[in-house]
Amino acid sequence: MQSDIEIARDANIKPIVEVAAELGIEGEHLVPYGHSKAKLGMDYVASLADRTKGKLVLVTAMSPTPAGEGKTTVAIGLTDAMNQRGKRASVCLREPSLGPCFGLKGGAAGGGFAQVVPMEDINLHFTGDMHAIGAAHNLLAAMIDNYIHWSNEVRLDLRRVTWRRVVDMNDRQLRQIITGAGGPANGFPMEGGFDITVASEVMAIFCLARNLQDLQQRLGRILIGYTRDKEPVTAAQVQAPGAMTALLRDALAPNLVQTLENNPAFVHGGPFANIAHGCNSVIATETALRLSDYVVTEAGFGADLGAEKFFNIKCRKSGLAPDAVVIVATVRALKMHGGVARSALEAENLDALQTGLENLGRHIRNVGQYGVPMTVAINQFASDTAAEIKLVQDYVGERGLEAHLCNHHAQGGAGATDLADAVAQLADSGQSQFRTLYDDDMPLWGKARTVARQMYGADDLEADQKIRDQFELFEQQGYGHFPVCMAKTQYSFSTDPALMGAPSNHRVKVREVSLATGAEFLVVVCGDIMRMPGLPRVPAANNISVNARGQIEGLF
Amino acid sequence: MQSDIEIARDANIKPIVEVAAELGIEGEHLVPYGHSKAKLGMDYVASLADRTKGKLVLVTAMSPTPAGEGKTTVAIGLTDAMNQRGKRASVCLREPSLGPCFGLKGGAAGGGFAQVVPMEDINLHFTGDMHAIGAAHNLLAAMIDNYIHWSNEVRLDLRRVTWRRVVDMNDRQLRQIITGAGGPANGFPMEGGFDITVASEVMAIFCLARNLQDLQQRLGRILIGYTRDKEPVTAAQVQAPGAMTALLRDALAPNLVQTLENNPAFVHGGPFANIAHGCNSVIATETALRLSDYVVTEAGFGADLGAEKFFNIKCRKSGLAPDAVVIVATVRALKMHGGVARSALEAENLDALQTGLENLGRHIRNVGQYGVPMTVAINQFASDTAAEIKLVQDYVGERGLEAHLCNHHAQGGAGATDLADAVAQLADSGQSQFRTLYDDDMPLWGKARTVARQMYGADDLEADQKIRDQFELFEQQGYGHFPVCMAKTQYSFSTDPALMGAPSNHRVKVREVSLATGAEFLVVVCGDIMRMPGLPRVPAANNISVNARGQIEGLF
Repeated sequence: MQSDIEIARDANIKPIVEVAAELGIEGEHLVPYGHSKAKLGMDYVASLADRTKGKLVLVTAMSPTPAGEGKTTVAIGLTDAMNQRGKRASVCLREPSLGPCFGLKGGAAGGGFAQVVPMEDINLHFTGDMHAIGAAHNLLAAMIDNYIHWSNEVRLDLRRVTWRRVVDMNDRQLRQIITGAGGPANGFPMEGGFDITVASEVMAIFCLARNLQDLQQRLGRILIGYTRDKEPVTAAQVQAPGAMTALLRDALAPNLVQTLENNPAFVHGGPFANIAHGCNSVIATETALRLSDYVVTEAGFGADLGAEKFFNIKCRKSGLAPDAVVIVATVRALKMHGGVARSALEAENLDALQTGLENLGRHIRNVGQYGVPMTVAINQFASDTAAEIKLVQDYVGERGLEAHLCNHHAQGGAGATDLADAVAQLADSGQSQFRTLYDDDMPLWGKARTVARQMYGADDLEADQKIRDQFELFEQQGYGHFPVCMAKTQYSFSTDPALMGAPSNHRVKVREVSLATGAEFLVVVCGDIMRMPGLPRVPAANNISVNARGQIEGLF
Repeated sequence: MQSDIEIARDANIKPIVEVAAELGIEGEHLVPYGHSKAKLGMDYVASLADRTKGKLVLVTAMSPTPAGEGKTTVAIGLTDAMNQRGKRASVCLREPSLGPCFGLKGGAAGGGFAQVVPMEDINLHFTGDMHAIGAAHNLLAAMIDNYIHWSNEVRLDLRRVTWRRVVDMNDRQLRQIITGAGGPANGFPMEGGFDITVASEVMAIFCLARNLQDLQQRLGRILIGYTRDKEPVTAAQVQAPGAMTALLRDALAPNLVQTLENNPAFVHGGPFANIAHGCNSVIATETALRLSDYVVTEAGFGADLGAEKFFNIKCRKSGLAPDAVVIVATVRALKMHGGVARSALEAENLDALQTGLENLGRHIRNVGQYGVPMTVAINQFASDTAAEIKLVQDYVGERGLEAHLCNHHAQGGAGATDLADAVAQLADSGQSQFRTLYDDDMPLWGKARTVARQMYGADDLEADQKIRDQFELFEQQGYGHFPVCMAKTQYSFSTDPALMGAPSNHRVKVREVSLATGAEFLVVVCGDIMRMPGLPRVPAANNISVNARGQIEGLF
């Protein structure tokens, strides 16, 4: 079997100007990065504002397991299939972080015959967006510490500077550090640390900003810490937002690449899906909608995290309204949710599958609350038996939906045409009456509790008094209208990653809250959330190299 | 008067494909980054190997002062002037670091009517080379600490890990840090710190590598620290060079941009000129020489640092041989070397000028040792008087050379045609009999002493016994054939930045030595060398922003 990188190398990649031409974009509006990647000029993006939007399709998934679900490949395969069926469809994806490529897994540009290309580029430096975001983030950090070093007129409390630094690398050694050692010339000794770049609030802001002006204003509102009198201090107070915006100016233009079947793919922005909202940029989605009849997009992790934030943060903030939702499931992952060990997934096990289907059922019920018509995609594996597939289809059928078997990984778009037909029909049906789960004017605690109850199936939300007081304080400070961005494990509806299936009678405990005043949401942390991954004992990097032809080996 | 950025914005920038076409490069061999920047495909670069090389001209300078000398503008203006005279000339420059743009000074893409464009791009992210180099450097750091975290089979001494981290930002707070705090999951507590990216050995290697294979091998030879038994440990031992090379693959291709007069400019690689060799990449220079009849390049700081390293490191390692040298001087800087305060530079002062000319005289004498014909460029300022200029010309004339008045800053190439004619004549004369200052087989201490005596005019080189022992050890370890890379202040021939002019009877004290085993030189540190700058009290960043038209304001 061909590896992902072998398939990608054999791809018949079209010049990106031709892919753009199919969208009606003339070459002058493209900013090329090589011959197969381009940004769209921001003036051109702005000129599209009055165009009619196409239909928006969200691809989300059951709770992920180590068996893999293939949400990204479904989004790509569905897009290719829709184009095969004569529909003008584009896909919108997050851009991958570079650091994790050197850790456990390979890239994040799809897989098999459902990939976006050029995959090495997309997984490594791409068009430099991630580097620009990291530089903007770290410029703010340097300007804060420089401000403290020279004057600190506002009396920033050195113990309460909340702005950390970022690097796009899995580097556990930098999680918690002491900076400013070595005497007065090196600043004040302070605690600090690095997160991975995708965890930066700058990334979240970048993905929610409507344009450069909006970006600059949001960057100015970033909370960087507190004074000795506990007054909040913003990035604007250290005069950083303008220079940060200068660093992000080119990056904010959406990136255009293509699927293996030469259909348009907008790959732009990639925030974490726990402490941030986990969707590609609003600018990319808005642009794609004005250039395509259908736009397929995906959100991080399972529907309890990704779809919830797509609806309650991205759509709320941008005015986007999805026309259809696809929930991706695999027989293997469902069996894991039914208690089967990863090593035993090859064997048919209908009992475990039946148990595990509760996970899918809960996601179906949850997504139903948003008023958007939906369908289910079964991402087929060779080990799936006919009886297993029938069981899933029957289970889904009992809930009034269809489950479409997809073979896009092996067959490309041709493997997902049933799904494509069903999705087009749903999106065209005009049935969608999208609504968010809660209104802006619900108090912050109420919003978090609503998500815990209605998305996680928890009995209640709880927190120590200190945390409750912070909720109250944020209300008083005027942030009560923010949506909540819930950070919890992706592996369970609960905060315990070991609780598979569809656990009930659990309570969600808030461990920490923090304001993202530029992104405009309250991060509510429930459980251990890793903002800086480490490398494994044998990192993928050990086996990566460049061969004599200049090709990268071992990346995937 | 127009600012640099206003001049750059008004530039009549040609599509880069047209600039390339003038060099005979077909579009298919270009990797575009937008419409006015491109990399040359590495296969195309390799295909040029058998072509005849053009003439190589080095632009160097007297000892720099805060008054500014304009080495980069002379290199650009000279190139434009040569083209005006019908010579096919290209310029090769270092690519600027992003961090310093936010500090004191503006960009490093020339100035006035002698600039390379697009200047905002070149000064900020450009084609991403600096980010790629930073990522490769930090991947190695993460892999070292990860290796220690999981096994540390070679027993790396945690106190003797010499590989630090880098960021392309002026961030004093990161100069000296403690990493790995917070318990066993975060690695071992260790001392560490960040340098600015241009100080990375990866940058030096990048600029000396002949191709990707050479790059990969050199990266593997980087010394990262010592075992508990004081045995050296290399990057190859933590299996990092392949993945580092993958990160650098695209960056290694040379960048092509243009001057304001649409002449080709290769801007690629930019190592520090004290702890590294301070010249653009060998690949860019070699490529430009095969595409042009004349290549004008520059080296960092004054001739005692930049030219010395250009000759003794870059030319020695690459086989390049310069055909002519230009030494840049200004009346203002010469007066500062003669003791005039910066505030009094507007007034004519022939006495001070006469004294300060000793600085230029020493550089002329020094450069004469390399066997390359030379000339002097006077970068004219409005305040220069006729008598002052005549004094400089007479002084230079007494030394058998000519001093050419240049007005490229105000007039572009038209302001440097006299210089252009002289340089073309020198380069075409066939007089150059380039030789390095010392042979490979001279012992390391002897090499450093030769530079101190013959370039700095010092009586002798000295060091504590501990340092002397290190020289001896490196000889025993087989590094005796390396050239030396001297790191000292750029403001004086001595190690005391306040000693202007041409100080004699001084001794150069070595404070520290370190091996750059991948770059293949011994760094000999004499005096305080800053590897991580800080931001000033009022950083330039405070006034940078993006205006409503998407243009960057305040960058320069």
